[in-house]
Amino acid sequence: MEINKRLLKLRILMENHGIDIYYVPSSDYHQSEYMCDYFKTRRFISGFGGSAGTVVVTKDKAGLWVDGRYFIQAARDIAGTGIELYKMGESKVPTTTEFIVSEIKENGTLAFDGKVASIDTIKEIENMLNGKKINIIAKYDLIGEIWKNRPEIKFTEAFILDEKYTGESFKDKIKRIKEEMLKKKANYHVVTSLDDIAWIFNLRGHDIKNSPVNLAYALISMNRTVLYIDETKLNDKVKDYLMKNNIVIRDYNDIYREAVELQSQNILIDKIKVNYYLYEILKEKNKIIFADNPSVLMKACKNKVEIENTRDAHLKDAVACTKFMYWFKKQVKENKNIEKISELDISDKILEFRKEQKGYIEPSFDTIPAVGANAPMMHYRPTPERHDNLKLGKLLLIDSGAQYDNGTTDVTRTFAIGNIDNKLKEHFTLVLKGMLSLSKVKFLYGITGTNLDVLARAPIWKYGIDYKSGTGHGMGFVLNVHEGPHRIAPTYNSQKLEDGMIVSNEPGIYIEDSHGIRIENILLVQKAENTAFGQFMVFETLTLVPIDLDCMLPDLLDSEEKEFLNKYHKIVYNKVSKYLLEDEREWLKEYTREI
Amino acid sequence: MEINKRLLKLRILMENHGIDIYYVPSSDYHQSEYMCDYFKTRRFISGFGGSAGTVVVTKDKAGLWVDGRYFIQAARDIAGTGIELYKMGESKVPTTTEFIVSEIKENGTLAFDGKVASIDTIKEIENMLNGKKINIIAKYDLIGEIWKNRPEIKFTEAFILDEKYTGESFKDKIKRIKEEMLKKKANYHVVTSLDDIAWIFNLRGHDIKNSPVNLAYALISMNRTVLYIDETKLNDKVKDYLMKNNIVIRDYNDIYREAVELQSQNILIDKIKVNYYLYEILKEKNKIIFADNPSVLMKACKNKVEIENTRDAHLKDAVACTKFMYWFKKQVKENKNIEKISELDISDKILEFRKEQKGYIEPSFDTIPAVGANAPMMHYRPTPERHDNLKLGKLLLIDSGAQYDNGTTDVTRTFAIGNIDNKLKEHFTLVLKGMLSLSKVKFLYGITGTNLDVLARAPIWKYGIDYKSGTGHGMGFVLNVHEGPHRIAPTYNSQKLEDGMIVSNEPGIYIEDSHGIRIENILLVQKAENTAFGQFMVFETLTLVPIDLDCMLPDLLDSEEKEFLNKYHKIVYNKVSKYLLEDEREWLKEYTREI
Repeated sequence: MEINKRLLKLRILMENHGIDIYYVPSSDYHQSEYMCDYFKTRRFISGFGGSAGTVVVTKDKAGLWVDGRYFIQAARDIAGTGIELYKMGESKVPTTTEFIVSEIKENGTLAFDGKVASIDTIKEIENMLNGKKINIIAKYDLIGEIWKNRPEIKFTEAFILDEKYTGESFKDKIKRIKEEMLKKKANYHVVTSLDDIAWIFNLRGHDIKNSPVNLAYALISMNRTVLYIDETKLNDKVKDYLMKNNIVIRDYNDIYREAVELQSQNILIDKIKVNYYLYEILKEKNKIIFADNPSVLMKACKNKVEIENTRDAHLKDAVACTKFMYWFKKQVKENKNIEKISELDISDKILEFRKEQKGYIEPSFDTIPAVGANAPMMHYRPTPERHDNLKLGKLLLIDSGAQYDNGTTDVTRTFAIGNIDNKLKEHFTLVLKGMLSLSKVKFLYGITGTNLDVLARAPIWKYGIDYKSGTGHGMGFVLNVHEGPHRIAPTYNSQKLEDGMIVSNEPGIYIEDSHGIRIENILLVQKAENTAFGQFMVFETLTLVPIDLDCMLPDLLDSEEKEFLNKYHKIVYNKVSKYLLEDEREWLKEYTREI
Repeated sequence: MEINKRLLKLRILMENHGIDIYYVPSSDYHQSEYMCDYFKTRRFISGFGGSAGTVVVTKDKAGLWVDGRYFIQAARDIAGTGIELYKMGESKVPTTTEFIVSEIKENGTLAFDGKVASIDTIKEIENMLNGKKINIIAKYDLIGEIWKNRPEIKFTEAFILDEKYTGESFKDKIKRIKEEMLKKKANYHVVTSLDDIAWIFNLRGHDIKNSPVNLAYALISMNRTVLYIDETKLNDKVKDYLMKNNIVIRDYNDIYREAVELQSQNILIDKIKVNYYLYEILKEKNKIIFADNPSVLMKACKNKVEIENTRDAHLKDAVACTKFMYWFKKQVKENKNIEKISELDISDKILEFRKEQKGYIEPSFDTIPAVGANAPMMHYRPTPERHDNLKLGKLLLIDSGAQYDNGTTDVTRTFAIGNIDNKLKEHFTLVLKGMLSLSKVKFLYGITGTNLDVLARAPIWKYGIDYKSGTGHGMGFVLNVHEGPHRIAPTYNSQKLEDGMIVSNEPGIYIEDSHGIRIENILLVQKAENTAFGQFMVFETLTLVPIDLDCMLPDLLDSEEKEFLNKYHKIVYNKVSKYLLEDEREWLKEYTREI
């Protein structure tokens, strides 16, 4: 097998370099979640196709670490490779760092490509060594050495995102960032995360599929801002814009050379975002101040202009999704060779409707259409080689989203393919109860997603079921579909939910080998009343796509839940119907009826 | 004023000793929550009578820090003293450590009585200094120097808590503790927290009001266990028991002298529990291993024998409380000079019924009976000088509990005094909804109180109201009414809820100058089914006291809540009625009727 050969080659290189353990995270030089193919070293060495996972190779062991979303898919992908699957979060399963620390011998050598490793992870390993002495070498990209025909990094044209979308100029943003730098007593700040750079400079690009960002680094000091970016990406308009804003342009890779020259500075860097290799250079002659990138929280709290634009993007997305749902339900109703329609056709169809929308750029992630037993594989993607067709009596789960020039969307709906049995309806309704319960909560300012997660989960727990993922993730504005610093999950997250934050609400039920249900709406955190007890907050639902009434057992909903759902569907109808054709509108009336 | 004079004397002493800041926490030598009068130095210097609070005095400032429970009471108590109130948890209010660090000058001197300060607090100050050099002196009990007629420490007779109550012998417990010590690579362990000592040795006493503990320290090594305790406390039976268990007895204060002699040992201590003065001695010649006392988690997870006993203690307590409620409702119904009954009479009456119960020892904390506008002062206690009488149309809140020889109880009920208006009923019903919502949740093992808190709070938040306290605290077995390591609160607590843990569930609504409502049941964490998704957990309600139907608006309860309440009242009737007189039983039938 191909993977076994690659592992053998890697172990020969490790032997030659005197390396005991080689560590392969899933990342690019910028700690991006999604990345261009050049960086998919973990996939190359393990064969595991999911978007998140880590490989560790020793002389006689190889392990793949994945989270709950990928337990099923990863087991399939690595079968027969000799790589062992480590299910993150399960009891007695060591973390990658625990594994490395326990496997490595005194004076052993741990190596990795430091440009794709986070500072945080390597420091965690160092902290856990407890006196054991080891060598850490961050300069070897061994996967690169054995990867023939490795894809190249493709640089695309950068473009300016107008202030009518962003609501704040580069100058105002950089001013706020410098204020935060001063508070932290830093006079330099290195930014390497691509969404932070895109947000700060109001620039977008297409260097990474699904994330409209440019591969770049930025260096901000009190009197100079340097953008490290491939110059072929910059047309005259962008160059002119950068010049007018006094932004110095350097080549993408120059950061590493220029970082060597920095000395005696107080440099603010985010240890989750900056790569370990760059950190090793910077810390040599400077004082490092670890703090979150100031832009992270600023970017997370959308301003009024971004919010107005995002509302519009969600409306356009809802029109596309509703048209898709109408088409889908029509195929089923008229039974037009329904079982010849494949999951890939479903992806194409929803893409077709989105492309009709104004300002559409691209999907915000690869669409997940999953029929029946494919859906419990949470980030399952059909391929031309492996996919299923629609089948009456089963559920179709579709998780999809788009980048528009005025917002980023992400929505999951689960549809009945014809008549479904009551067990499926019961599970659907439990997921709906969880989704509604979180959507309608009013909460005191100061609360985090850790506190709220249970609202979505309790109705599902009641039936002895859980979903092995968080409930919600933050979202960018014409940026990454997953964005921090907040999230909604049972595990601890210290970020308070702030006015203007966007977060997904996506509980689910996943029954292996049977069916999977997820209902996902996107929520906007908004201020509600300020009382003697403090500032209260509520969620505004941004997503405007019907929730399939064919899947519900209304008796399982209490009166408050019914009222909330009916009100939601009324809003959906009022906002979406005017963009539909007559047939579609009639149909939507039926599918947003009161229950 | 008396307090101003005391502050003046303190500042003179500070001046004489070259002290810039003097720090007065609320604690005894054992970091106990409740303490005997000898240790009430913070009360002496500030006049604030609440059980929790901290005073910091500089040359020209004095501050009192209290949490939300005491905002109202503290403001009253310190009015006119010149002491400033710092409301903990409110925005822009510095913590005591932040205050100390910002006030102290380079080379300034911070002093305190190290025997009443926790290691954790002092380390927090040290960590925040950020290079500023200061002197920390832990040897001055300056309040002791100015406190004339200071009460003495009174030692009481210790007694053995039989294995029929504890369910586990000292020998088995010490074996488990040594196993944990070995895991942490410690060969010595110093235990100073009184409830841990009581639990480990299966000894109880009466040295502290409400907490049946003995003032003592313990030193555990692999081959020797030393108990530092006043010998006059030990009768022959106890001495014999200690001897048979090979426990060495030393005088209470000998720990400090013997600690000096320890060297080259690996000593496990809990930095939240051990005092700073003892730590300074121990760290001199030994390696300190900071970890939670192993007994903390062991003690929190009640064994089967403790659980059976606790259930019985709650039943006895319920009989007393039900008899009280019957008496109270009868007075109101017959209007027997109802407005001449004072809050103090209420305390006496409920005590009277508890005293009739088998194995009753003492209250587990000072009873809080609060009429009308006294109830929002959350830990209000009536005094002969300041109290109110019952008044028709108002609410009576009673928070009380008992120590029995087979368990510890704590229960809050809020009763209507005659007919009350709908606003009060609405608030009562919201609190009830919160209490029921938490009581009936089924949750996945691994969840903490941080995750569950919102269940109790959301129904109250919905009306723009919050309560400024946690929702629930752990509880001891014939021990402290407040016991860690778990709790239910929005702030982060990492302790998973384990099978056998006991926790209170006490949401509330407190409207200043108007009314206060709290409903508190005690819950036992129990395993429910184990499914493909993991181990599920539920709460068993231990408290068996009727919830006043006169206060409810049943229309605000949904069908699940009504069902849960009706089932609860049915259990109350079935278990409690057989211990009541005929009249009482008839009445209970009415007050546990289905709604």
